[in-house]
Amino acid sequence: MNASAAGPAASAAPLAILCGAGAFPLEVAADARRAGREPFLIGVVGASAAAIEAYPHVWVRMGEVGKLFAALKARGIAEMAMVGAMTRPELSDIRLDWGAVRRAAELASLFRRGDDGLLTGLAGIFEREGVRIVGAHEVAPRLVAPAGVMTSRAPSVEDEADIALGARLVAALSEFDAGQAAVVASGRVLAIEAAEGTDAMLTRVAEMRRSGRLRHKGLAGVLVKAPKRGQDLRLDMPAIGPDTVAGAVRAQLRGVALAAGAVLVVERDRCAREADAEGLFLAGYPA
Amino acid sequence: MNASAAGPAASAAPLAILCGAGAFPLEVAADARRAGREPFLIGVVGASAAAIEAYPHVWVRMGEVGKLFAALKARGIAEMAMVGAMTRPELSDIRLDWGAVRRAAELASLFRRGDDGLLTGLAGIFEREGVRIVGAHEVAPRLVAPAGVMTSRAPSVEDEADIALGARLVAALSEFDAGQAAVVASGRVLAIEAAEGTDAMLTRVAEMRRSGRLRHKGLAGVLVKAPKRGQDLRLDMPAIGPDTVAGAVRAQLRGVALAAGAVLVVERDRCAREADAEGLFLAGYPA
Repeated sequence: MNASAAGPAASAAPLAILCGAGAFPLEVAADARRAGREPFLIGVVGASAAAIEAYPHVWVRMGEVGKLFAALKARGIAEMAMVGAMTRPELSDIRLDWGAVRRAAELASLFRRGDDGLLTGLAGIFEREGVRIVGAHEVAPRLVAPAGVMTSRAPSVEDEADIALGARLVAALSEFDAGQAAVVASGRVLAIEAAEGTDAMLTRVAEMRRSGRLRHKGLAGVLVKAPKRGQDLRLDMPAIGPDTVAGAVRAQLRGVALAAGAVLVVERDRCAREADAEGLFLAGYPA
Repeated sequence: MNASAAGPAASAAPLAILCGAGAFPLEVAADARRAGREPFLIGVVGASAAAIEAYPHVWVRMGEVGKLFAALKARGIAEMAMVGAMTRPELSDIRLDWGAVRRAAELASLFRRGDDGLLTGLAGIFEREGVRIVGAHEVAPRLVAPAGVMTSRAPSVEDEADIALGARLVAALSEFDAGQAAVVASGRVLAIEAAEGTDAMLTRVAEMRRSGRLRHKGLAGVLVKAPKRGQDLRLDMPAIGPDTVAGAVRAQLRGVALAAGAVLVVERDRCAREADAEGLFLAGYPA
């Protein structure tokens, strides 16, 4: 579990990627490499996928702050992206090293804040060490939702109205640090996401349709997903992927609408193909 | 399925109750009778409980508007409360009589509106026929959440902060005609209600706790329930009952907070007793 050998040479400055759960950090690494960056992946024990070892990497435990900074400094890395969901650690997952103890007061204060405060505080700690935090959208631009339609089917006029309503709703929820997604059908709000996450919300809509609580015929409704207003996209960027499209299919939605430039699309080609197969649209709207 | 004989004599003007689903219309009838009104229940075929026949009543099908007005006029009834959930009817449930056909354009336009518009439109139709719509809170005041604590346990200072946050959130959702309830724990919004209803939202919180998605220890979080800002309480008043308390217990909440004077509490004594048995609070907050 130490840093592996350096990867292929790259033309631009090296880029660290702090890897949350899942395969998405690897996609960002691949797209960043296509864009000429040399990715160095930081795996967090208990959070990151083992597959990060395909890239130059180091494993750290939560709390091994000193080890992390040492690894970055040894490689002259001055930019880092934080990618993928990082669950709030259990106390037992944390191992404080000297680098953490030196910053104990600062770190402790992070855990008294909301999720946004936690990330902002973490970013501040990195930046004071000379490591600039960059967003996945900056280093892997091909992974960001474009403005416009990604599928054969485009939103109808009624869909556009539902998208506008959903976008206004998510914006209104911004100040509560909850809800980056909603499902709207013909002007009616069917579901609002909070702690359960987007996939669970789509499962709920599918269940309401099955049970007859929602009585729409055929495809109905739009999933709208957007960052909170004023959200720092470098730290926390909403994302969808094939699971989201599969959830939208099960919920019999008409499509998925994303704030253009502000939502990551994991495996975009596959998402578009699977939406097309069921007649759903996938579109970015000007945010 | 005709009007039954008149009930016991009452001191004040007779009161019609248009009965939605469940037993709550019967509670309103009982409390209104205690307050000296003579209740006349209107059962809707396919919606109202058979138990409404314990009171003077008439059964109508959805769309039998003429029959309904004739029944009210025959009894000199000039006030009506609409109590309990009325699901939007399937077309096949509707039987249009001459009274409905006369008002066809008006009725048809109702079904193109949101739930609020539907109710407001219905109320307008009644009022133009000389039947004033009154709220359950006006005719059955004992069934409304009071300001203050209904249980042995009272909200803590932290609970009060969660209640304030939940109340602000529900108010912010008002303009979207969605969400009259939310669950908040230690400043974090765990769940927001939309089309699924309060009980399903509480089930979701219980599942998130069971699965470990939420990692609170012991009782955590508050259910906050309030009407939408500007909601016409005569037409649509939020309500809780023993099922809600049972849901809050399963979700391991610390308590339930209701906008005082604006939320109905079905079987209040039982709700308080069952909350007490599990150490939850049940409180009305000044709305």
